[in-house]
Amino acid sequence: MASRSDAEWYWSDEGVNFHTRKWVRPEDLNANGSLFGGSLLRWIDEEAAIYAIIQLGNHRVVTKLISEINFEASALQGDLIEMGLTATHFGRSSLTMRAVVRNMITRERILTIERIVFVSLGEDGKPKPHGYSAITYDRDRMPREHPATGTVKLPPA
Amino acid sequence: MASRSDAEWYWSDEGVNFHTRKWVRPEDLNANGSLFGGSLLRWIDEEAAIYAIIQLGNHRVVTKLISEINFEASALQGDLIEMGLTATHFGRSSLTMRAVVRNMITRERILTIERIVFVSLGEDGKPKPHGYSAITYDRDRMPREHPATGTVKLPPA
Amino acid sequence: MASRSDAEWYWSDEGVNFHTRKWVRPEDLNANGSLFGGSLLRWIDEEAAIYAIIQLGNHRVVTKLISEINFEASALQGDLIEMGLTATHFGRSSLTMRAVVRNMITRERILTIERIVFVSLGEDGKPKPHGYSAITYDRDRMPREHPATGTVKLPPA
Amino acid sequence: MASRSDAEWYWSDEGVNFHTRKWVRPEDLNANGSLFGGSLLRWIDEEAAIYAIIQLGNHRVVTKLISEINFEASALQGDLIEMGLTATHFGRSSLTMRAVVRNMITRERILTIERIVFVSLGEDGKPKPHGYSAITYDRDRMPREHPATGTVKLPPA
Amino acid sequence: MASRSDAEWYWSDEGVNFHTRKWVRPEDLNANGSLFGGSLLRWIDEEAAIYAIIQLGNHRVVTKLISEINFEASALQGDLIEMGLTATHFGRSSLTMRAVVRNMITRERILTIERIVFVSLGEDGKPKPHGYSAITYDRDRMPREHPATGTVKLPPA
Amino acid sequence: MASRSDAEWYWSDEGVNFHTRKWVRPEDLNANGSLFGGSLLRWIDEEAAIYAIIQLGNHRVVTKLISEINFEASALQGDLIEMGLTATHFGRSSLTMRAVVRNMITRERILTIERIVFVSLGEDGKPKPHGYSAITYDRDRMPREHPATGTVKLPPA
Repeated sequence: MASRSDAEWYWSDEGVNFHTRKWVRPEDLNANGSLFGGSLLRWIDEEAAIYAIIQLGNHRVVTKLISEINFEASALQGDLIEMGLTATHFGRSSLTMRAVVRNMITRERILTIERIVFVSLGEDGKPKPHGYSAITYDRDRMPREHPATGTVKLPPA
Repeated sequence: MASRSDAEWYWSDEGVNFHTRKWVRPEDLNANGSLFGGSLLRWIDEEAAIYAIIQLGNHRVVTKLISEINFEASALQGDLIEMGLTATHFGRSSLTMRAVVRNMITRERILTIERIVFVSLGEDGKPKPHGYSAITYDRDRMPREHPATGTVKLPPA
Repeated sequence: MASRSDAEWYWSDEGVNFHTRKWVRPEDLNANGSLFGGSLLRWIDEEAAIYAIIQLGNHRVVTKLISEINFEASALQGDLIEMGLTATHFGRSSLTMRAVVRNMITRERILTIERIVFVSLGEDGKPKPHGYSAITYDRDRMPREHPATGTVKLPPA
Repeated sequence: MASRSDAEWYWSDEGVNFHTRKWVRPEDLNANGSLFGGSLLRWIDEEAAIYAIIQLGNHRVVTKLISEINFEASALQGDLIEMGLTATHFGRSSLTMRAVVRNMITRERILTIERIVFVSLGEDGKPKPHGYSAITYDRDRMPREHPATGTVKLPPA
Repeated sequence: MASRSDAEWYWSDEGVNFHTRKWVRPEDLNANGSLFGGSLLRWIDEEAAIYAIIQLGNHRVVTKLISEINFEASALQGDLIEMGLTATHFGRSSLTMRAVVRNMITRERILTIERIVFVSLGEDGKPKPHGYSAITYDRDRMPREHPATGTVKLPPA
Repeated sequence: MASRSDAEWYWSDEGVNFHTRKWVRPEDLNANGSLFGGSLLRWIDEEAAIYAIIQLGNHRVVTKLISEINFEASALQGDLIEMGLTATHFGRSSLTMRAVVRNMITRERILTIERIVFVSLGEDGKPKPHGYSAITYDRDRMPREHPATGTVKLPPA
């Protein structure tokens, strides 16, 4: 059994926060019985969108760029996957994130993406400055309106 | 804007760890345009399975009981949902968890489930003692074999 | 072979009406190869919504409460599942149902839920009295308008 | 409001048994916002497979032929759909069924299929006589083994 | 290895254009482990809708009729499927297509549908003449507006 | 309306073959109502796998690398998407492809990926030389066995 300090070292040197987890089920497999790359990419894109909304305080975020993806290991049915992200650069209307996906069972890194860039948009669909320059570890920038209806959702602070 | 201490108070009094997040998309809606309860239950069950595997060190876990579910609030397209769990009781071959689902945007609690009970099974499909009596916050109990193949996945500790 | 009267006895003592059926396919399995509890909960919630709409004559129904769920048996790929519901209480704006899910192949009961409570909502999203106090076995309460458009759908009676 | 006898007349003249129901949700829509024909065909094929397994007492059934499908009406988000089938001919190794799909809300027939033919297969994947010549309204022909494992599932009658 | 001329002969005598391809994955299988007929029908209906939109220059197309479908062969996990269509008749507001589905690996024809009829609709949901009488092999009839918003999408020619 | 020669010029200068098409439906949208990037990435990965299997004559192919992805334009519900690929380099056990995704309605390029690298694996899961050095436009390299069963599928040439 790995000692706690080993595990801590192994699992915490990434500088990213791991949130969403997946249990690899039959519907996530490709025809060879290993994790379908397309499912993996789908999970990452959703997780990055969530991270960007929390950091930029705006629902209207779109994927602008994903840098090179190197698939280092795969996963099989029954493996547990976790996805981690961290903001690495705040542009005027953009946010750059680094992503790591790990297999919790085999302790292998499945892939790393150095740059996922999302852009914050205004109601006109054009890039809109977000006004932030550093990571929040809090929920203090949450959008206060629904994207579709515009109704206010949060009580005054 | 909520001050940091407010938010900390609001978000950390549950005693649970929040991991997996969801961005409510059109495919998650019911015919009324709000979050489909069935999607929500599906997400919770997967998250509970992941939590149980990590705590019990066994892939072969099954849902045995879910206590009363009270839907306190709903969610709309674009909302961010987070699911949290904590182990509350270790039985001989079972694990009892408490689950909380929250809407990160509206800061409302969507539902709480006091007891989700999973059972650890042996290869014969019968309950199998797991030997644990307390929560691990580490990855030290990870299953070392694949459920289907039985091949060893982890290097020696 | 079970005699007809045996089967009748076995299958009709629940006091519920079984409608929707499922054929357990690979996409419904968890990573252990048995029926994924989350899929099952998703199916029940949809079936309960359909039942409530028929009884309350209103599209705008939401899940309010699901009482304790005890998983008595599971199912494997290829099994046939049937879901049954019956109204047990008509509140002012709510409907309480009892649900039974059975494995048609093994004749085992998979689970029973004593109370699934749905609430009828008005256009303002608030509870709205439905005016009914007993079950209909007919289609006489069908909503006459589409939820989104409000256009009349049924010809005059 | 339609009187009970009206509704009974309207809904029971098909000679088929309606079981599975669907609540049309956003994921079932085509890009025009009406029910996606492909989803409808998927639902019918699953329902026909279930019906054939119950009638022929064999898991190994495959779709062999679907006669002309005439789409008489469509459905919108929020509509309730029901699918009905009845056996019309028992061949040596085949079963012919008639299918009707109805919109429970608008009371329109969505489509009728005069002949859906399924074939019963043996373990070698070749047509296998089923030995039946009439409909059962009971569960007396249920397969007693799982397709994959061959393990016996039912207790002796 | 089949010579090139053999293959050309084999694969080009259908008079149809093959576009969309599928890799049969676990989520496409029925409970017997072969390609689920319902998935296949779903793929065909989507492909036919795409073909009809390109030919008729209108997003608002609906499936009106599908002639007899004879399932000649099946497919297994890992097989590659291709779907082909060709217009066979231009009615006043309708388009008739012939469809062929093939297993690229086994070179078997999975099914042929002699007539899939789509109808072009106007904004009022009623059949609308399309004005075409012959196939285009170009993109010259593409709809210029989005179905929902009506905003112009194409620059002037 | 674009003249035929314009369109030909516009659509054929990519040097790639466009096969699979998608009709953007509600289930493909993100919470903002535009095409979900994750769905798009899933479609591309499946299409690349199919292309690689045809070129390398081996079912056992895995995604190894995806170079930078620049999202140039998006798509809305109802748009038609086409995906194109071409082999650009044959390594010893790898294949490099270039991918282009286009919106057929707006005629915009949605994204281009300069290098998608797949690797051919042997039964032992290790890279296996494929022996090819040039593109085939034929079906002459199709795998002759099923990945799971190893049964021969193709008749002798």
